[in-house]
Amino acid sequence: MKVTVHVHRRPDIADPQGTTVARALRDLGYENVGKVRINRTIELDVQGTDPAVVEAEVRTMCERLLANPVMEDFEVVIG
Amino acid sequence: MKVTVHVHRRPDIADPQGTTVARALRDLGYENVGKVRINRTIELDVQGTDPAVVEAEVRTMCERLLANPVMEDFEVVIG
Repeated sequence: MKVTVHVHRRPDIADPQGTTVARALRDLGYENVGKVRINRTIELDVQGTDPAVVEAEVRTMCERLLANPVMEDFEVVIG
Repeated sequence: MKVTVHVHRRPDIADPQGTTVARALRDLGYENVGKVRINRTIELDVQGTDPAVVEAEVRTMCERLLANPVMEDFEVVIG
């Protein structure tokens, strides 16, 4: 089963990588670029037949390894 | 205008970060995890009124800075 996890920093947490990219884009002449945020998307192949069971399991993977619970939120999408 | 860019390695390019995460998940006991790929999603605020113009401009940003054309593909989504 294909599972996609979207991990993003909470809105009130600074994103230094995004800030650096925004500045680099403006330096390249893209003056109309405002805020930039860089998130990660994790695609997993997980063996399992029950989507609810797989989703619950992937949520524990996020809490234990895939996301930083102090500053990130995550969303699990089956399929 | 909000623009989202999905950047992912081409399928035939190895993803060492994904491989490492897959191994770490199996080490944690998730034996049913197969392949893992880690991609990035970039969210940009871009000033502009014409979605077609903004999309074309963001595509040039991808080619020049946001993606590595040697090993990555990208997809630009307006909104």
